[in-house]
Amino acid sequence: MNYKIIARFISMILAIEAGFLCLPIVWAIIDKELQVIVSFLISAAAAGLLAFVLWLVSRNASRTYFAKEGMVCVGLSWIAISLCGALPFVLSGQIPNFLNALFEIVSGFTTTGASILTAVEGMSRAILFWRSFSHWLGGMGVLVFLLAIIPNNSRDSGLSMHLMRAESPGPSVSKLVPKMRQSAMILYLIYMALTVLDIIFLVFDMSFFEAVCTAFGTAGTGGFGIRNDSLASHSPYVQIVTTVFMTLFGINFACYYLLLMRKIKNVLKDEELRFYILFILISAGVIAVNIHSLYDSWGEAIRHSSFQVASVMTTTGFATADFNLWPTLSKCILLALMVIGSCAGSTGGGFKCFRILLIAKTAKRNLQQILHPQRIKLIRINGQVVDEKIIAGTGAYLGIYCFILLISTVLVGIDGGQSVLTSFTSVIACLNNIGPGLDAVGPTGNYAALAPLSKVVLIFDMLAGRLEIYPVLLLFSINTWRRKS
Amino acid sequence: MNYKIIARFISMILAIEAGFLCLPIVWAIIDKELQVIVSFLISAAAAGLLAFVLWLVSRNASRTYFAKEGMVCVGLSWIAISLCGALPFVLSGQIPNFLNALFEIVSGFTTTGASILTAVEGMSRAILFWRSFSHWLGGMGVLVFLLAIIPNNSRDSGLSMHLMRAESPGPSVSKLVPKMRQSAMILYLIYMALTVLDIIFLVFDMSFFEAVCTAFGTAGTGGFGIRNDSLASHSPYVQIVTTVFMTLFGINFACYYLLLMRKIKNVLKDEELRFYILFILISAGVIAVNIHSLYDSWGEAIRHSSFQVASVMTTTGFATADFNLWPTLSKCILLALMVIGSCAGSTGGGFKCFRILLIAKTAKRNLQQILHPQRIKLIRINGQVVDEKIIAGTGAYLGIYCFILLISTVLVGIDGGQSVLTSFTSVIACLNNIGPGLDAVGPTGNYAALAPLSKVVLIFDMLAGRLEIYPVLLLFSINTWRRKS
Repeated sequence: MNYKIIARFISMILAIEAGFLCLPIVWAIIDKELQVIVSFLISAAAAGLLAFVLWLVSRNASRTYFAKEGMVCVGLSWIAISLCGALPFVLSGQIPNFLNALFEIVSGFTTTGASILTAVEGMSRAILFWRSFSHWLGGMGVLVFLLAIIPNNSRDSGLSMHLMRAESPGPSVSKLVPKMRQSAMILYLIYMALTVLDIIFLVFDMSFFEAVCTAFGTAGTGGFGIRNDSLASHSPYVQIVTTVFMTLFGINFACYYLLLMRKIKNVLKDEELRFYILFILISAGVIAVNIHSLYDSWGEAIRHSSFQVASVMTTTGFATADFNLWPTLSKCILLALMVIGSCAGSTGGGFKCFRILLIAKTAKRNLQQILHPQRIKLIRINGQVVDEKIIAGTGAYLGIYCFILLISTVLVGIDGGQSVLTSFTSVIACLNNIGPGLDAVGPTGNYAALAPLSKVVLIFDMLAGRLEIYPVLLLFSINTWRRKS
Repeated sequence: MNYKIIARFISMILAIEAGFLCLPIVWAIIDKELQVIVSFLISAAAAGLLAFVLWLVSRNASRTYFAKEGMVCVGLSWIAISLCGALPFVLSGQIPNFLNALFEIVSGFTTTGASILTAVEGMSRAILFWRSFSHWLGGMGVLVFLLAIIPNNSRDSGLSMHLMRAESPGPSVSKLVPKMRQSAMILYLIYMALTVLDIIFLVFDMSFFEAVCTAFGTAGTGGFGIRNDSLASHSPYVQIVTTVFMTLFGINFACYYLLLMRKIKNVLKDEELRFYILFILISAGVIAVNIHSLYDSWGEAIRHSSFQVASVMTTTGFATADFNLWPTLSKCILLALMVIGSCAGSTGGGFKCFRILLIAKTAKRNLQQILHPQRIKLIRINGQVVDEKIIAGTGAYLGIYCFILLISTVLVGIDGGQSVLTSFTSVIACLNNIGPGLDAVGPTGNYAALAPLSKVVLIFDMLAGRLEIYPVLLLFSINTWRRKS
């Protein structure tokens, strides 16, 4: 294990975070909140100091690195930025308990949006900004951001591919152009452009602060609201804009690059995109029929159903209605959508449409092979043959995913005060980076009442979900830290 | 598709069923229930007639058959015996609704044990006997029974391997001896011997009728009780005996064969067996600690926890306590055990310990391959290398399993009268052939109140679970029925 190169990367990541920690100070100055200003300054200084120490330690880093260094680097970076990112919450006194603060910031960076706050509206704006901004940073990935800004000729660029692969969601990394740095830059430019567009649409009917925070939550598919009722008390216009943008941010960003390259046909033929849109339309339609008696008009029913479907499918987690009170069918559909998740290469979480599509095709292939054992059939997605290793890997990924789901549910169940449905759906909601689950952790509930052990387990699940399990699991494997390897 | 050979096998299966349908008449004669006697006679005659017609149709069956014929044959046979097996319930007037009767007998043959009966104790003994006997028949498999009795030199024996593979649980068929017929015979002899042993133990503290029915439910890991409270009102002795025998029937029968061959070391070293026993012990221990405050003594807590753990893990579904009322942790553990299930090659259902073990090893291997990409590592179970095709197949199987789970949950959720937990756990309980779920379908509840659509979905799930999905899915694939293939 090349510890120095890992220290070097974490040092850079922390330096970036130190810079970002100064942004919320603007709001604190406007609102004249001295304690908040000081807390962000101390946090930024702490992150900066840690970055400096790691920089000193890692000066003579050698150039030998492999996939494992990439994985470990990503896993440790996320833990480091979470630990520093939780500081302002604690120092400002707004979330005095460190475990709660850590839960909140991990929920932010992983774009989960599960909150331990019971009253959001009483919080300082600077704190709320940092909370929502963490969604935006975590959505596309902090390391991807780093890759976009470090010079191409850096001696560390060889690690780029491994880092990008470990942090980007989906079974294969979307390498838009041959050079990694350019790919990362293009991704971030599209991401920023879409976010700005969202802000422009929202600011017509929201304050600038609210528009920015809502756009951050939408772009990162995070879901932290800045009102206690999430988006329920906002206008239908804001809700519809957010529905559209949530859906847009759940699409593989490679599609936007293809659009920019005017390869519109390729986008329209994208199987994952079709599957994703089809699922949203069907689910929203069925739920609208199922709930329309609860609302005054069909328009309202469709608005609420499509908002909730887009929110859950993209794993954002905003809510305009308490779907805990909806009929069983609607809840079951939402539960299924929670597991499916968004497209690979988007900012969303979940198991990813690509993997679902791949498993469906594998299942169909296996059935056909029983009928025609002599024929060898390859699996194609978008016309391209999928490597059998990726297919086997997807099966194994599903296996580990189910393991973590079961074990976490049992561990969260140790807290006897919560129901089975709460235990199970809180794990589903955190592992898939959605935010709200059902029952006590439903859209109007929150995670404050869970036991400390449950919070630790869910923090692990959120990180495992965001980083697609392996980088986090690797940190817990003894073999990773053995000297001789 | 060789329709004639399929018709031939279904004809033989129905002839056997016609014979078995005469057995319950003994009880009906003792109890002097004329309508019940007549209903079983008519049912046997109907099965016999159908068998005769199919026999006539299939006289010139050719010898060309492949795996698909085996799969389709198994799928259709199970549907045929279920349709005929439901007749006595309807004709005797004890379950007048045909869908309910079909649900009950499919639940019986698939050894699920999910019941639509609200008052078992008022039923005729002949009907209860048939219901429990269906567990015993379905446990080891009706086709395996057929294979054990048809002559070796039959021109159909080439299909045996395919049939056995399709009906036996687990990723690979346990071919104990080179000849299929002998393997099937040995399996059934062990099965019968263990059942008789169970009856002998039980009859000390139960009537002969109760002992036989309970032993059938235990042997097939079915779970139909003949009292309203399942085994709760029976003596601790009966409960402990049943705990032990449930555990025994959840073990791969190949282990018993090895014991008979005096290869005790191989049995002790069997990884799946160790995993299975370890899981039962740990789960029973944790639950005992979790529930001990609810009971008078530690002994009672351990008795109830080990009974329920053995019952759920082996997918039997008997109950001595209403675990719906237990703390969340215990319920979560039971939910996890429901999914895991028993050993491959046993009469139990679920995902099977073997597959869990295989997925765990694959996950570990994949982690190691990130650390050492250059090393090629094979996966071994019991010292033998597992074929990569089986590993990939297990991943695909898990994928289809999760699909069916999600889609079924949504379909059962259409019945708005039930909770999400009821919808979800009823599917889990049926797909894994357990019987009781949580909430409305918990140990003291039943499936009577579910909507007709839910019952149809759950009938499909029970069959899919028992036959390990492919034979049932194949029946629904258009490609299966295409002429040219």
